[in-house]
Amino acid sequence: MTIQHPSFGTLSDDRVIIFDTTLRDGEQSPGFSMNLEEKLRMAEALSDLGADVLEAGFPIASPGDFESVQSIARRFSKSGPVVCGLSRSAPKDILRAAEAVKEAARPRIHTFISTSPLHMSVKLRMTPEQVLEAVANSVTLARQHTADVEWSAEDGSRTEPDFLCRCVETAIKAGATTINIPDTVGYALPEDMTRIFAMLRERVPGADGVIFSTHNHNDLGLAVANTLSALKAGARQVECTINGIGERAGNASLEEVAMALRTRQEALGYKTEIVTKNILRTSRLLATITGFDVQPNKAIVGRNAFAHESGIHQDGMLKDRGTYEIMTPESVGWTTSSLVMGKHSGRAAFRDKLKALGYEVGDNQLNDAFARFKEIADRKKVVYDEDIVALVDDQILRGSDRLRLVALTVATGLHTRPMATMKAEIDGEEREGMAVGDGAVDATFNAIRQVFPHEAGLRLYAVQSVTGGTDAQARVTVRLEEAGKLVDGQGFDTDTIVASAKAYVHALNKLLIKRERTAPADMAGADSTAA
Amino acid sequence: MTIQHPSFGTLSDDRVIIFDTTLRDGEQSPGFSMNLEEKLRMAEALSDLGADVLEAGFPIASPGDFESVQSIARRFSKSGPVVCGLSRSAPKDILRAAEAVKEAARPRIHTFISTSPLHMSVKLRMTPEQVLEAVANSVTLARQHTADVEWSAEDGSRTEPDFLCRCVETAIKAGATTINIPDTVGYALPEDMTRIFAMLRERVPGADGVIFSTHNHNDLGLAVANTLSALKAGARQVECTINGIGERAGNASLEEVAMALRTRQEALGYKTEIVTKNILRTSRLLATITGFDVQPNKAIVGRNAFAHESGIHQDGMLKDRGTYEIMTPESVGWTTSSLVMGKHSGRAAFRDKLKALGYEVGDNQLNDAFARFKEIADRKKVVYDEDIVALVDDQILRGSDRLRLVALTVATGLHTRPMATMKAEIDGEEREGMAVGDGAVDATFNAIRQVFPHEAGLRLYAVQSVTGGTDAQARVTVRLEEAGKLVDGQGFDTDTIVASAKAYVHALNKLLIKRERTAPADMAGADSTAA
Repeated sequence: MTIQHPSFGTLSDDRVIIFDTTLRDGEQSPGFSMNLEEKLRMAEALSDLGADVLEAGFPIASPGDFESVQSIARRFSKSGPVVCGLSRSAPKDILRAAEAVKEAARPRIHTFISTSPLHMSVKLRMTPEQVLEAVANSVTLARQHTADVEWSAEDGSRTEPDFLCRCVETAIKAGATTINIPDTVGYALPEDMTRIFAMLRERVPGADGVIFSTHNHNDLGLAVANTLSALKAGARQVECTINGIGERAGNASLEEVAMALRTRQEALGYKTEIVTKNILRTSRLLATITGFDVQPNKAIVGRNAFAHESGIHQDGMLKDRGTYEIMTPESVGWTTSSLVMGKHSGRAAFRDKLKALGYEVGDNQLNDAFARFKEIADRKKVVYDEDIVALVDDQILRGSDRLRLVALTVATGLHTRPMATMKAEIDGEEREGMAVGDGAVDATFNAIRQVFPHEAGLRLYAVQSVTGGTDAQARVTVRLEEAGKLVDGQGFDTDTIVASAKAYVHALNKLLIKRERTAPADMAGADSTAA
Repeated sequence: MTIQHPSFGTLSDDRVIIFDTTLRDGEQSPGFSMNLEEKLRMAEALSDLGADVLEAGFPIASPGDFESVQSIARRFSKSGPVVCGLSRSAPKDILRAAEAVKEAARPRIHTFISTSPLHMSVKLRMTPEQVLEAVANSVTLARQHTADVEWSAEDGSRTEPDFLCRCVETAIKAGATTINIPDTVGYALPEDMTRIFAMLRERVPGADGVIFSTHNHNDLGLAVANTLSALKAGARQVECTINGIGERAGNASLEEVAMALRTRQEALGYKTEIVTKNILRTSRLLATITGFDVQPNKAIVGRNAFAHESGIHQDGMLKDRGTYEIMTPESVGWTTSSLVMGKHSGRAAFRDKLKALGYEVGDNQLNDAFARFKEIADRKKVVYDEDIVALVDDQILRGSDRLRLVALTVATGLHTRPMATMKAEIDGEEREGMAVGDGAVDATFNAIRQVFPHEAGLRLYAVQSVTGGTDAQARVTVRLEEAGKLVDGQGFDTDTIVASAKAYVHALNKLLIKRERTAPADMAGADSTAA
């Protein structure tokens, strides 16, 4: 079987399309929101990773979402990934998505509607016939704007089989080129996937001219298995996210799917365009942006994924890596040692290192980063790759901040009342404040609130070491919420309290941008989000 | 089909035995080591959760491992779980395991040897005939000590089929009552599991009189699917861990397997004895003990597992929870609100709350805990369940410490040199010290090193909020390494720096205990660890 696809041309039967939805399904999960700049960086990384399609956002959801999809659409040429915008089935949704991806070299509109009995009756309050009509109309409208149109049956795995066939037939007739059957609630077993895709390919007229797609959630720990099962039954597009982020328990993890396909290529027989050695770097970038590390035992990208601690595993490993290892850590981007530079390293070596880490910086940025590197190298015996990534990220995160920390002093201890004094610049004007608190961090945050009064609530405070050792830099994440909007700020410093202050100020700066940019959007209508 | 089992009696065909190896495979992964007290607490929690078998450790590995298995074996009566000790195939290993589980009301010895071509030739340096002989001898010896004997074919999923059948036949003839086929390296696909278990049950004489067991690692994200696939092909014991911890990418996660079996009972048809509402509590206890939280999108127990953020999911949820939820959060122990108590709550209410949280405390412990509760309630507007768990855990973690923090003062800030002064008691004797550092935490740790000089290196430093809000308690984890031994310490306080000092001191106290208890063990011999 070969298929002609508007974006991919002739596709051989063993080729699996990797559709990444880190920027849409991933980004809409609690705490994983990203701003425009962060989304662009992730999009570049996903392109370098070899993802075929990037679902860049949900344009009707907010002006910010629209802007992100549009900016990502503009970013890539014909040789880059397909850029996709999500939309419900209403004309205004589809037109907004079409507008957002209009300037993409390879645009896709992804439109969806719920097809399960429960979702149709309770959520949509539509009859099956009305849903069928919406399918036809939405796909037809989308096809007037892009040749590449994906249609999804939300809650597809719980949809009545005959009706699912009718919906898919309708979507194909209206011009859909990819048909996605999401397991929206993470309920399916691998055998359900086999049954559904085999049925559709057997019964629906025109099924052999489209790409079937699978979109699995991990609520029962089965997202990867369901994905493989769907491929076996004929699906050829996989929807997934970096680190498996996404609604609730998240989506199938891109790195697990890609490495299962590669490691068991002899048994499964599929191929993707994923550049596996970029996997770890992409995973870490997402962790840095969102402030959430994966757990140590996360497959492929967790700190322990290739660690062998028990004495006997180590013994076996020394004799032959194959005894306990089915893929090499190097194949997904782990390096045996990340020790790199010290205080005697020069500017040229530093620039080379930045390049190797995936950063292209201008001369000014290089000078700033190098100065900060020297400052850290003076304090730390060894400077790791992670330290350098942290300092560059820190610099990129601060762009043109309205709020700037100038001075900070904090005192605390056992059985004492912690206190903080602070000086900050707001739009160039200096202000001072001091405050006590329940802890050093609390006192510091209270002082910030005094210097710059605001109503936002603290929703998350987390500290991680960038590297091991007592002289490690701390990475602090602060999440603030104002009027239902979440922003995450990050700060890096060898001092946890200073890193905390920087993170809070960073979050406030992001909030100021968000305040300017955001307008209310109609999101609780009769229609609903995909997958 | 019904089976007569020495520990479980008559088992109906739909009954799945849950074999928990959190305390063995889980505990041997980097950073997840637990001391005796912590293992006993986990064992109690696993028993309350309804696990059928606890693999309590690997008795020959170290005197500490032996002591843990023995203490857990003594802890439970006939109505408690089977307590199992692991051993390689050498007689001294088996005798050590037998000794450790001797006093259990329901003991099991679990013995294993590698059976794959690679492991036999490279790691064991034994011929297949020698391995077969070791299987017969090891199981025969084990059966002289316990009626309940499990045998495992290490690297079973990569073992040549005919040879695997011969090994299993040999083990059954020698008296094994459970036959485990681990996917040691996490390489198998679900169809491999179907093939292996179907083959064994069809071809091996005596297969219908034993329980087949499956043990899956998650290197390709398939551990849960492989487990379900093995059950379908006739396995009736599942080896798994809380939070899916374990070597490399970990084991099949107990909570995911249990909830898949329950949520899809109508399709799968199996039952377990797991008390699902205790799942979250058990997961959190493990996180508290090891200092590692699961990632937010971890299925079942992650913070986002039941969170619906996107506006439209929320809309659907308000109309009918079933639209996006396949199981209720309450069924696994999530409560809709964990807000509980304030400064006006009395001692009786506090005792009731402790009971509800699963703590049975004596009068002295209650008094201490209540005093600390009042102290926190004075500082915090609302006291959450998590705060109470933290304070009781903190109290339990400090038992009879040799090293005690008496006073601490810390000063830090932007562009200043952080410094700390400290007073501590060591075996009752007071000492003072002061130090500077790269950050407030570094200065604090340097001061501790001055007061109590030691060579241990800092391997991990992590801070988490116990609850949200600026007045949240911080939970700090500090991991120290001395001569290859790892200890994790934890500290709770509203002040991050004070919590850090407490965590470091806690880790040092654990190190002092470990120094007294540990002796070298022969672990790098010709034989190897299971599964």
